[in-house]
Amino acid sequence: MIRRTNSNKKRSASPSHKGIGWEGAINTAGRLIPEDINGEKVTPFQGVGKFISEGRRFGHKIPSMANFPSDGNKLVASLKEALVKSGLKDGMTISSHHHFRNGDLIINHVFDIASELGIKGLRWFPSASFPCHEHLIQYLEDGTISHIEGSMNGPLGRFASEGKMSKVAVLRSHGGRYQAVQDGEVKIDIAIIGAACADPFGNANGLNGDSASGLLGFALADSQYADKVIVVTDNMVEFPCVPWQIQGNYVDYTVKVDKVGIPEKIISGTTRITKSPDRLLIAEMTAKFCEAAGIIRDGFSFQTGAGGTSLAVSDYFAKIMREKGIKARFARGGSNKYLVQMLEEGLVDYILDGQTFDLDGVRSMRDNPNHVWTSPFTSYNFHGKGNFAQLVDVVILGATEVDVNFNANVVTHSDGYLLHGIGGWQNCLFSKTVILPLPLFRDRIPVITDEVTTLCGPGELIDVIVTERGIAINPLRKDLLEKVEGSGLPLKTIEQLKEEAEAICGKPQKPELSDKIIAAIKWVDGTVIDVVRQVKREAPPNLP
Amino acid sequence: MIRRTNSNKKRSASPSHKGIGWEGAINTAGRLIPEDINGEKVTPFQGVGKFISEGRRFGHKIPSMANFPSDGNKLVASLKEALVKSGLKDGMTISSHHHFRNGDLIINHVFDIASELGIKGLRWFPSASFPCHEHLIQYLEDGTISHIEGSMNGPLGRFASEGKMSKVAVLRSHGGRYQAVQDGEVKIDIAIIGAACADPFGNANGLNGDSASGLLGFALADSQYADKVIVVTDNMVEFPCVPWQIQGNYVDYTVKVDKVGIPEKIISGTTRITKSPDRLLIAEMTAKFCEAAGIIRDGFSFQTGAGGTSLAVSDYFAKIMREKGIKARFARGGSNKYLVQMLEEGLVDYILDGQTFDLDGVRSMRDNPNHVWTSPFTSYNFHGKGNFAQLVDVVILGATEVDVNFNANVVTHSDGYLLHGIGGWQNCLFSKTVILPLPLFRDRIPVITDEVTTLCGPGELIDVIVTERGIAINPLRKDLLEKVEGSGLPLKTIEQLKEEAEAICGKPQKPELSDKIIAAIKWVDGTVIDVVRQVKREAPPNLP
Repeated sequence: MIRRTNSNKKRSASPSHKGIGWEGAINTAGRLIPEDINGEKVTPFQGVGKFISEGRRFGHKIPSMANFPSDGNKLVASLKEALVKSGLKDGMTISSHHHFRNGDLIINHVFDIASELGIKGLRWFPSASFPCHEHLIQYLEDGTISHIEGSMNGPLGRFASEGKMSKVAVLRSHGGRYQAVQDGEVKIDIAIIGAACADPFGNANGLNGDSASGLLGFALADSQYADKVIVVTDNMVEFPCVPWQIQGNYVDYTVKVDKVGIPEKIISGTTRITKSPDRLLIAEMTAKFCEAAGIIRDGFSFQTGAGGTSLAVSDYFAKIMREKGIKARFARGGSNKYLVQMLEEGLVDYILDGQTFDLDGVRSMRDNPNHVWTSPFTSYNFHGKGNFAQLVDVVILGATEVDVNFNANVVTHSDGYLLHGIGGWQNCLFSKTVILPLPLFRDRIPVITDEVTTLCGPGELIDVIVTERGIAINPLRKDLLEKVEGSGLPLKTIEQLKEEAEAICGKPQKPELSDKIIAAIKWVDGTVIDVVRQVKREAPPNLP
Repeated sequence: MIRRTNSNKKRSASPSHKGIGWEGAINTAGRLIPEDINGEKVTPFQGVGKFISEGRRFGHKIPSMANFPSDGNKLVASLKEALVKSGLKDGMTISSHHHFRNGDLIINHVFDIASELGIKGLRWFPSASFPCHEHLIQYLEDGTISHIEGSMNGPLGRFASEGKMSKVAVLRSHGGRYQAVQDGEVKIDIAIIGAACADPFGNANGLNGDSASGLLGFALADSQYADKVIVVTDNMVEFPCVPWQIQGNYVDYTVKVDKVGIPEKIISGTTRITKSPDRLLIAEMTAKFCEAAGIIRDGFSFQTGAGGTSLAVSDYFAKIMREKGIKARFARGGSNKYLVQMLEEGLVDYILDGQTFDLDGVRSMRDNPNHVWTSPFTSYNFHGKGNFAQLVDVVILGATEVDVNFNANVVTHSDGYLLHGIGGWQNCLFSKTVILPLPLFRDRIPVITDEVTTLCGPGELIDVIVTERGIAINPLRKDLLEKVEGSGLPLKTIEQLKEEAEAICGKPQKPELSDKIIAAIKWVDGTVIDVVRQVKREAPPNLP
């Protein structure tokens, strides 16, 4: 077992690493990291805020208006024509955003075209992938796509976990993705930007139209830095498409298609608060903790997310604010019906939103100037001069596992399967107080472990674990410990919580993993904090 | 006299060029251009759309959030502290925007501080300067400032024209300024961004507060590409400052001062239509020409500007639209009371605004989502994948001189004095139809000449000259000639107009100029289209 250490130590390749050709180094988080991934040199994680890049932002080739239509009309007849005109060829990097979530109809079509054209070895660089992209497994198998850099929710994650992807996946946070593109770590050849609304010049938004997704911020870096940018819409309006979340001045081609997405899979009709008594209890304890710790004060800020428990936390926050007669200065989205109600009720001055989770969110973003759209650049990019995440008083996050050092995992399950993306999770760890409300166990598997299967967030950034059986505060946060002392909240150490879970469920088994690396997990600064290894036994087919 | 030619011809330095150390080349516009300016190699103008840069956009040093305050609060005690922390030193480039126009209180203060600190040889890179900056002449004289790159309206222009600035000024259009920064031609060390409203993180806008200027788009490039960015405001609000026209993620330091500008000099209380019968006649003829040419149709677009004649043109446009029962899809600002009325009346769907000229403009931009703020990037940058200017059906512009080849001058008077900036003028020449409504003479000096004193815009881009004594259409625009034939409009050749003026005023004298170059005029692609030479005799002191 690899022990935690404070320096990067070289470790020569053991025989078991043969064939994947790497020498490893143990990074400061104690994780064994290869020297290169997919032939590119790796910078190992060096500690929070320790790695400072000496580089410069990527310099895109200077375009000239002289090479674009003089009337500004960039419309071409089909997506295929746009791809061909963009010079699609073997080995290119194709990027896409995930605002259409599981209702995306564009990206499968892109790779169908690539396959039809006989293109091979493409790197797909989505901001996230969804089960609807299971369609692409055939192209991963036949070599049209060499690998994916981006989260792989569900089937694609299983495919990668079983060692079937020919190259190593790379997972980044939303902010890390912006950072990688900005810093030139990932050079995008062709960016595909599906939009609910666009004009022929390429201005686009996610607000108006049947495929409304709220916003398009996950495609911002792609638009700014990709060599070629294609905007695809099913709602082409006359110039100007207002507001322009994507600026046409970055766009090469525009395409009108019948349908960019399936509306009911893009946005849920409505998000719902959990009805589970355990989850409600956890949410209530989270809110009470925040109250006791003095976090819920006039002018505070929070980010909760749109899961059932998170929604319940927001709802308890709202109750407390009403009782106290105070309001929040801002809430960071993902926005949803409950958050919109709080904005409309005057409980929050602003929603600073990164993605809308339901139709109320879309409506509010479109109509309410205090419901402001943000991007991974404003909110999450670590290689900016600060970002919004650091300004948030309290953030409520999830995790698949947490260990006794407060390290957390959000990408793999304890059976080793890579089934989730990082999202903005790593970026949110820079908020002033980070709370993970978690059930003590899931399917009789304890959530608190000796060591997380995959390290996604260093424990020093995670402040509080709230479970149905008690609250553990990171000993680094003496200030919080002092504030809630005597509050009557069920405070426990994290070891106590772990023991309680193990007393009920037994000690969990370690996943059986091979040495083969199937994915790298990037930290917010572009360094590699951990890797994911192939599972030894394939999961039964009913796994997601 | 230099004759028009189609190739760049080398011309060896004549004795009279000694001392300014250059060999010249005649660019494709027939203008003699030095090989270098201020020690930097010059690319001569090569024709409209002919020069294609092989370079890459400037790559800013990658910042790290780790080097910024963890709470996002970048407020420092004073502008001096911000400048010192930004590493102000000899020879740096200091940029500023001109949204505060003649009411700016910030930039004089910046150079007062530089002088106090004994700094020398600064390059000032404003988006424009105004008479209020006459204060800086002392620093040009004592070497604190080596030279200005940016328009020099009034006293600074006179100072430069008389050969008193130690280096050569460089004038660019608004789009050319964005291009120069984006392309790394001008590397800004410290950007000073005065704002009517900001938060301690650095988000800023020009919409809210006593010093409201409408927007801050002229500082966009500065924020994105400068090494250090300082936001200065007299209206510091709690995060978030919404909307953020300048993104705090680009900002290093924020400063609160008592007053950033003098409101009544920032924005005129109200703009007014000309009362001059001649100007009204020219405006009416311009509108009638547009009607006859079929330009004023449902869904058309226009840009007129905020001068008295331009306002009158807008007003005539409005009358025609009302009569026809049609509306414009968009109008490009500078916005003003009249344009806002048209938006509110439903005569235009959108105002796409680059700067607000009066308080009605500011109010509308703040409150009306169809009054959209733009920037030199969206509207004018020639090194983008197109820009908004090319989408405008008709643009109404001014000029100090036009010659018989439709070439126009906007920076010098016919006495050779450099008294105006280029603004967005060059950029607007890419609109579909470019009309210059001009009086046939000013102060008994004909406006139409054999050859413009300074070439700012090539004649091939200028379509129509409207004067009180007739309309001249560029022979290149056969389509326009055909459309207005038989319309009863007083069509004349440009030579006819010139002769009429000369019959009244006599042949104008050529200005007496020395060989010393005092300013370079950049074309929209970064090439040099012309230079301005020192005037031989100083102007009497009552000149502006």
